Amino acid sequence: MSILVVGSVAFDDVTSPSGTVKNVLAGAATYFSLAASYFTQVRVVAVVGEDFGPAQESVFHKHGVDIRGIERAKGKTFRWGGTYTDNLNEAKTDFTHLNVFETFQPRIPKEYEDSDFLFLANIQPTLQAHVRQQMNGVRLTGCDTMNYWINRTPRELAETLKLVDVLLINDTETKMLANETNLPRAANKVLAMGPQALVIKHGEYGATIFFRDGAFGIGHHPFRAPALPIEEVKDPTGAGDSFAGGFMGYLASQKQVSREVLKRALFYGGVMGSFAVERFGTERLQSLTRNEIDARFQTFRELTHLD
Amino acid sequence: MSILVVGSVAFDDVTSPSGTVKNVLAGAATYFSLAASYFTQVRVVAVVGEDFGPAQESVFHKHGVDIRGIERAKGKTFRWGGTYTDNLNEAKTDFTHLNVFETFQPRIPKEYEDSDFLFLANIQPTLQAHVRQQMNGVRLTGCDTMNYWINRTPRELAETLKLVDVLLINDTETKMLANETNLPRAANKVLAMGPQALVIKHGEYGATIFFRDGAFGIGHHPFRAPALPIEEVKDPTGAGDSFAGGFMGYLASQKQVSREVLKRALFYGGVMGSFAVERFGTERLQSLTRNEIDARFQTFRELTHLD
Repeated sequence: MSILVVGSVAFDDVTSPSGTVKNVLAGAATYFSLAASYFTQVRVVAVVGEDFGPAQESVFHKHGVDIRGIERAKGKTFRWGGTYTDNLNEAKTDFTHLNVFETFQPRIPKEYEDSDFLFLANIQPTLQAHVRQQMNGVRLTGCDTMNYWINRTPRELAETLKLVDVLLINDTETKMLANETNLPRAANKVLAMGPQALVIKHGEYGATIFFRDGAFGIGHHPFRAPALPIEEVKDPTGAGDSFAGGFMGYLASQKQVSREVLKRALFYGGVMGSFAVERFGTERLQSLTRNEIDARFQTFRELTHLD
Repeated sequence: MSILVVGSVAFDDVTSPSGTVKNVLAGAATYFSLAASYFTQVRVVAVVGEDFGPAQESVFHKHGVDIRGIERAKGKTFRWGGTYTDNLNEAKTDFTHLNVFETFQPRIPKEYEDSDFLFLANIQPTLQAHVRQQMNGVRLTGCDTMNYWINRTPRELAETLKLVDVLLINDTETKMLANETNLPRAANKVLAMGPQALVIKHGEYGATIFFRDGAFGIGHHPFRAPALPIEEVKDPTGAGDSFAGGFMGYLASQKQVSREVLKRALFYGGVMGSFAVERFGTERLQSLTRNEIDARFQTFRELTHLD
């Protein structure tokens, strides 16, 4: 199966207690597509500037990622700089230069129209909806968003949420979107907005998936995948996008999307997120093997498995 | 098997978004002993004032808890008042009247000397150590502490930690005790201070147990028990003590303490903590059945179980 991701490709400057890197290839679509590439065929729609060249292309090509949908625009690629101090859960943004991303209008190449799965990374909700409407043949649509859109464009976001199957956001975003501080109650409110399932990412504590009644099978309980406590977190940037890549990539590799498959996907999401943070930028995602991924999947399983 | 708990018995005033209660029976030793009473025989050492009468005694007696070790002193019982706002994870303390608890000197009745397990609830570390030294025949000692002692009496606490087998604290306390912000690194530092195992309670995200190399069996991986997201949290007070009661109570009900038993105990801890917060004070802990407990244990298991 193939999966289409629409989102940002960027160059990041990151400082964390482990050091500093500059101009590393990053962006939600990059993290997502590298993580998903270990499971399925990935196609990217994004925009880059003239500073994106063969060195960056080869990162995608080495993982079989189709980048015919990455548009080359005049100017510079999106750039972001951030600093993590002791609290690795939150970055202080040093700068955001949207550059060519500011006027991004996603265009789906003809060759991408038969994609089986769609992931709408964190971009303006109206653009997400527009892409989704062009891809009516997909089997399942995943979606990300952020506080910025929840606060600034709630009506547009509400329209987008009606069109997606699985929303992947974090605890804070869930509570903000639902205007409700109790997490399971907030989850139910978000599900009432449209998605069949809601994946809430808890950072170092794993993730929980909540289902709409009757969606993807029977049962009314949520499911939680824990995350392995990691001693070496070098750069938390992209953990959520890598989680989404592992989650959606695994779904796209399966014959059907049942609750059991979604549960396993939640574990694979955590696995890919945990690899991503071990090195700066996408370094660790570039060098993985499927064996390493499956070994960590086993470790995550054993982490909560009672005999 | 029998378990001895040494800690506070108190009357609490609690306000949360669900309402207000006044003068409810509470305190670490109370939550702990009620939670543990569903698994094993419990004995309490504590101090109360003249306001503690037959109504309070009967709460313990109904659960077969031995309170011959509860000393009656002149004056009033320990009183605490707290308010939870939207963030149910943290209480604003409205008042703390230590009353008779201020000069608490734990005295172990002769009849308690053959106790098999010991739990040192959150009291002054020197008192904890003193109790532990009198109970040299116990098979396993669990211990709690808090920020106050970590900051004020670090040397005394370090001495106590050399005498305990399992320390049960939360994320913040672990990081503070180890002076290290990365959780698994902090856990390893705490284990080097003495305990064979460290249980870190993550509130709504469950708990993780870290083992010293070779302690309770082989293996080097921690184990994590998730917590069910709860829609109705009325009063988070005592969740940690109820967790400890379920954890230690289950251990005391087993023939031996292996890693597998400790893992199950972690689930039972989460189960008892989740019941405690459903009602104000110890109301829910007073009315449980073992069937309800085992049903929730199953739910917690299924929460992360892959077929």
